[in-house]
Amino acid sequence: MAAPAFLPELATQVVVPVAAVVGIAFAVLQWVLVSKVKLSPEPRRGDGSSAKSGAGPSEYLIEEEEGLNEHNVVVKCAEIQNAISEGATSFLFTEYKYVGLFMGIFAVLIFLFLGSVEGFSTKSQPCHYSKGKTCKPALANALFSTIAFVLGAVTSLVSGFLGMKIATYANARTTLEARKGVGKAFITAFRSGAVMGFLLAASGLFVLYIAINLFGIYYGDDWEGLYEAITGYGLGGSSMALFGRVGGGIYTKAADVGADLVGKVERNIPEDDPRNPAVIADNVGDNVGDIAGMGSDLFGSYAESSCAALVVASISSFGINHEFTPMLYPLLVSSVGIIACLITTLFATDFFEIKAVDEIEPALKKQLIISTAVMTVGIALVSWLGLPYTFTIFNFGAQKTVYNWQLFLCVAVGLWAGLVIGFVTEYYTSNAYSPVQDVADSCRTGAATNVIFGLALGYKSVIIPIFAIAFSIFLSFSLAAMYGVAVAALGMLSTIATGLAIDAYGPISDNAGGIAEMAGMSHRIRERTDALDAAGNTTAAIGKGFAIGSAALVSLALFGAFVSRAEIQTVDVLTPKVFIGLIVGAMLPYWFSAMTMKSVGSAALKMVEEVRRQFNTIPGLMEGTTKPDYATCVKISTDASIKEMIPPGALVMLTPLIVGILFGVETLSGVLAGALVSGVQIAISASNTGGAWDNAKKYIEAGASEHARTLGPKGSDPHKAAVIGDTIGDPLKDTSGPSLNILIKLMAVESLVFAPFFATHGGILFKWL
Amino acid sequence: MAAPAFLPELATQVVVPVAAVVGIAFAVLQWVLVSKVKLSPEPRRGDGSSAKSGAGPSEYLIEEEEGLNEHNVVVKCAEIQNAISEGATSFLFTEYKYVGLFMGIFAVLIFLFLGSVEGFSTKSQPCHYSKGKTCKPALANALFSTIAFVLGAVTSLVSGFLGMKIATYANARTTLEARKGVGKAFITAFRSGAVMGFLLAASGLFVLYIAINLFGIYYGDDWEGLYEAITGYGLGGSSMALFGRVGGGIYTKAADVGADLVGKVERNIPEDDPRNPAVIADNVGDNVGDIAGMGSDLFGSYAESSCAALVVASISSFGINHEFTPMLYPLLVSSVGIIACLITTLFATDFFEIKAVDEIEPALKKQLIISTAVMTVGIALVSWLGLPYTFTIFNFGAQKTVYNWQLFLCVAVGLWAGLVIGFVTEYYTSNAYSPVQDVADSCRTGAATNVIFGLALGYKSVIIPIFAIAFSIFLSFSLAAMYGVAVAALGMLSTIATGLAIDAYGPISDNAGGIAEMAGMSHRIRERTDALDAAGNTTAAIGKGFAIGSAALVSLALFGAFVSRAEIQTVDVLTPKVFIGLIVGAMLPYWFSAMTMKSVGSAALKMVEEVRRQFNTIPGLMEGTTKPDYATCVKISTDASIKEMIPPGALVMLTPLIVGILFGVETLSGVLAGALVSGVQIAISASNTGGAWDNAKKYIEAGASEHARTLGPKGSDPHKAAVIGDTIGDPLKDTSGPSLNILIKLMAVESLVFAPFFATHGGILFKWL
Repeated sequence: MAAPAFLPELATQVVVPVAAVVGIAFAVLQWVLVSKVKLSPEPRRGDGSSAKSGAGPSEYLIEEEEGLNEHNVVVKCAEIQNAISEGATSFLFTEYKYVGLFMGIFAVLIFLFLGSVEGFSTKSQPCHYSKGKTCKPALANALFSTIAFVLGAVTSLVSGFLGMKIATYANARTTLEARKGVGKAFITAFRSGAVMGFLLAASGLFVLYIAINLFGIYYGDDWEGLYEAITGYGLGGSSMALFGRVGGGIYTKAADVGADLVGKVERNIPEDDPRNPAVIADNVGDNVGDIAGMGSDLFGSYAESSCAALVVASISSFGINHEFTPMLYPLLVSSVGIIACLITTLFATDFFEIKAVDEIEPALKKQLIISTAVMTVGIALVSWLGLPYTFTIFNFGAQKTVYNWQLFLCVAVGLWAGLVIGFVTEYYTSNAYSPVQDVADSCRTGAATNVIFGLALGYKSVIIPIFAIAFSIFLSFSLAAMYGVAVAALGMLSTIATGLAIDAYGPISDNAGGIAEMAGMSHRIRERTDALDAAGNTTAAIGKGFAIGSAALVSLALFGAFVSRAEIQTVDVLTPKVFIGLIVGAMLPYWFSAMTMKSVGSAALKMVEEVRRQFNTIPGLMEGTTKPDYATCVKISTDASIKEMIPPGALVMLTPLIVGILFGVETLSGVLAGALVSGVQIAISASNTGGAWDNAKKYIEAGASEHARTLGPKGSDPHKAAVIGDTIGDPLKDTSGPSLNILIKLMAVESLVFAPFFATHGGILFKWL
Repeated sequence: MAAPAFLPELATQVVVPVAAVVGIAFAVLQWVLVSKVKLSPEPRRGDGSSAKSGAGPSEYLIEEEEGLNEHNVVVKCAEIQNAISEGATSFLFTEYKYVGLFMGIFAVLIFLFLGSVEGFSTKSQPCHYSKGKTCKPALANALFSTIAFVLGAVTSLVSGFLGMKIATYANARTTLEARKGVGKAFITAFRSGAVMGFLLAASGLFVLYIAINLFGIYYGDDWEGLYEAITGYGLGGSSMALFGRVGGGIYTKAADVGADLVGKVERNIPEDDPRNPAVIADNVGDNVGDIAGMGSDLFGSYAESSCAALVVASISSFGINHEFTPMLYPLLVSSVGIIACLITTLFATDFFEIKAVDEIEPALKKQLIISTAVMTVGIALVSWLGLPYTFTIFNFGAQKTVYNWQLFLCVAVGLWAGLVIGFVTEYYTSNAYSPVQDVADSCRTGAATNVIFGLALGYKSVIIPIFAIAFSIFLSFSLAAMYGVAVAALGMLSTIATGLAIDAYGPISDNAGGIAEMAGMSHRIRERTDALDAAGNTTAAIGKGFAIGSAALVSLALFGAFVSRAEIQTVDVLTPKVFIGLIVGAMLPYWFSAMTMKSVGSAALKMVEEVRRQFNTIPGLMEGTTKPDYATCVKISTDASIKEMIPPGALVMLTPLIVGILFGVETLSGVLAGALVSGVQIAISASNTGGAWDNAKKYIEAGASEHARTLGPKGSDPHKAAVIGDTIGDPLKDTSGPSLNILIKLMAVESLVFAPFFATHGGILFKWL
């Protein structure tokens, strides 16, 4: 046997929880700093400002100047924030009620299906991989998988909910800070994003660590069973994420499209104008869709890639020889990731200061580069200290010898591929480069050419990310089989805290702008928040790029783990069972996208009718003398998204079960591979097309260059064409596109969890034929 | 050895060429019938009509009434037809010049690469599959493959060219017949379509038959080598089709989009208005894109599926035992297909008569059903007479026993799956059903919702066709391995003569309408041709559905033949080499679509600028007193399509070569599988989305129902939104979508042809690593 890792078990048992606690503490610190921005009016110092205190709401709409401590503005901001926060909370509670029911039923299914593998026997069985040893019964695995599933779902739910709470806590504070300058506003928004990023990364790690240790008390030496059960954690996290993404995505885009179609296109009033009845629903949507949905999604990816790595490790030399430190290598990577991101964050908040609008995007890009660079050192350290010099990895029935530096390469290639994907995404979605400018230029000949160019841009933007993913897969797969792919995914996700901070920053800035508009603050404030938001659009697209790239790697790793666990020897495309799976699997992302896009379309139609009705029937609404009925619009979005998230959710959750039970594991393998290779393309192209349209519109609106000014101003024909593109892109980039990550991941992790059941009882149709 | 087939070799040697000759004779007969419609003015019988003969061109634009033998109208129609025909001929000649150069280079490559397999040795070699026998040298295969390639390319070129000639011969005749009633016009258009359908099906069969017999003189007993060389025929046909589809597709849509954007949207003049400078280019485009392109495409599919079946058969018991009749089973199926289609055609032209507009679509649908029913009997007959009761089929290294009724099932399942795909396509693209009506309804809230609903419709329309394809593959694959899949594809294509007749009918009617408009004929004529055209839109979508479905089956069969020939044992997704191929292959259709859509967009922009320029600078153009400069627009389309067809063409032609040489046959297998399963989805969704938008617009324009009238009339806001959707759909349904068939087929057949080269010299990158 080779020499063990440098780091003793005790050290690992200390390092992982300490890193998690440090991450949580850092999140709390950031929160304290954000909370120093007061949202209650300060005591008045002079009489100048109180003179305005008696003004009615109509005045806010046209107010051009305000003092720094303007009493009314602060009160107004607090009010709006409250409305958004209440709407978001109430939606999430309704959503969780329905999802909770679904999860409960699914938990029972997991227990029953996995329990039935050995006929609910309570007797221990000989192990599968550790020959000659005894492992825990399938019933125990059923029970612990179910517990892990619930744990994952709850952690994901709490992550999403807290993220939303923090975002709705920070949005108005960002607005108020924008009065002091763009730098102050940036720091508030970014710190708030960091609260969410660190909280999520650290609590995901912490819960996983605790679960492994608690489950370990029962499982003892049976690591094979222990880490099989732990995969339920990933399934729970992703199932929750599915509904969060789809439900939130439908909510936010129904409101957004509805608000834009009537407000901007028909009534010619600005975005986020308080006269628009759908404006509160729109702002609520940003928080439940982009914040809570994205949080759950990335948490799911993180949980799944850790689980995929752990389950493969458990049947490799680490697991068979019970080497604790290398076994927990995936958790060590995440621990170092938290510390690396912590250092990176200081570069944005403390080491440098944003002074001008054009420093925002570079600052965010620097975050990506710094975190990747610091993390590369971190990975080298962990690979050197946490792994033996040489070890063996399970590779579809055989054991493959791997060196620690090879595993370092696997993690690093994932990390750097993420950076490449991030920069390519930026190139295709930022209006600083020619692709988006070309799309903007095509608006000259109308909406049709804008859509044709936008779709073509999205298709084109797939090329380099796919090569980056393919290269990472090839390298990590060749070096360390499926374990390599799993840790490559983990590498891409190791800077998740920074990624999420950047990601959450976008919707917070978006909301801040909305609040400024609704509170009737000066145009200068709106311009500052708009600049924050434009950078946020690009970073949101980058975040989606990361999410999709990591999802592809994670799914492949899970797929590999599934194949191992289902004891399939090869997944040969040239067998009819596998091929039909492959082609049907490649079709599923289309089916799923059709459902989600149609849902957004139908919900938006309802929203449009309601907004039109209010404009037509409420007297004084256009003049700003009467308040619209925000609540009805919030209700339309809520009802539509709850109702419409069920069919696509069921499609994803039930497909692996139906295919596995009726057609067996070979066809299911085909479905997973097909959905993966097809879904990743649509996901990338949909989110980049949408991002490009959004920024092409912003490019025309901002009019920052000679070229942009020939297309503008707001209300010109090219601008109208750009608005149409932006509206079409909304469901693509925020509903169907990002949900596809979850489709491919979730089907893979679900297949993995149910693999023993399918292997025993699956394929009844072929057996019967 | 089992009993031989009933049909002796001599009978087969008679049946196949006779069927081909009958098909050609029938095509000539239809042409003679069409030619009876005179396009030169008849001698004047009275003075009433001659009174108008002195009128200038300005009068035609506003003319509302015309006599049956109106001299000027006939002259005008002949003139326009001439302009269209000249434009199309000149474009095709330019295209063929460039493509000819490319083909010449490629032919040399084929010869050099295949010749190098055994180092240009002229010595005979031991056979691969027929153990103990001697086969012809690789150099002979290189030479005959090259000849077959050129033969395929030339046949494809001639097919496309003749189709275009017939269509431009028939369009004005259809217009003139429309004066006598919708039934007469229908028969003229349909007969002309039949000329093309039968000519293409029969000559494709005939050339293949001749080539097999001529090559056979050299090859003698070496059937393995003979049918390997014959695969070059498929490659030639498809390479030509690629450029035809892409070049023609860019041509037609650049003109169409350009004409619509300025004419319909900006200037508010009707489609095909003679004042629009791009109108001739638009009508030329229908003939070079939809007619010549589609003809080459389906010819390519037919040639490839025959070649795939033949190459597998040659290493099965038919080939090894030299049983000529069952060996030529694929050609027998096609022969019977020609006869079955001949009977079917009579139902449309002779047995029944169209009297009203609403009988057109049912009549075309009946064609599909009748041909399928008749052909089912034909297949049963051929399978009973042409096959021994039992035989063995080569199945990746093993021989599989198959019964003749099982092979009947394989062909039949392909045939009926085609019908299912046809009807599903009709459901999603005809405005008689709710999907298109929903899309039309979504225009109420503007172009953005129209696009969202249209994209969702396209995605949804993929579901059933994919299940139909998957079912056919599973059944035919399980029963007779790759040979089964190849004959299933052949089954789907066995009614190609009818399919093409229906298909070609569409653009001919479209042109006829254009000519009526340009010749200033009465609105009643235009209404009749519009009704023909609306049915043609749906049948065009059905034709594309067939083309895509058969392409999927053909590609899989070719892929299987490639794997056999490259001597790969399994294509295991879970090896890094295959998986990276799979994910990159799934990306290729996106890359290709990005190129073709961007090309259409850029060419359309140029066209828009030219059309705008003419409207702005030519005095009297809008008033109809001056003729526009049609030639410049024709030139823009020609130049753009010639220039822009090279990069996507090169992508498709070079990818298999690059991947095969650098990465080897395993990665190439992955690329083929990935491109197949991903491409088929985009192709179906793109062509159905486009078809639905087109018909949603027509639904609003026709205003045939209460619901449709609430959305109209022409020029209303919903109608404008519908026009935007229609314009976006143009490149999707006529350029990028249908070209994708060729992408997947061509890469597969090219890999098959080069398989021996890749197996010997390929994969240098991995060898070097």
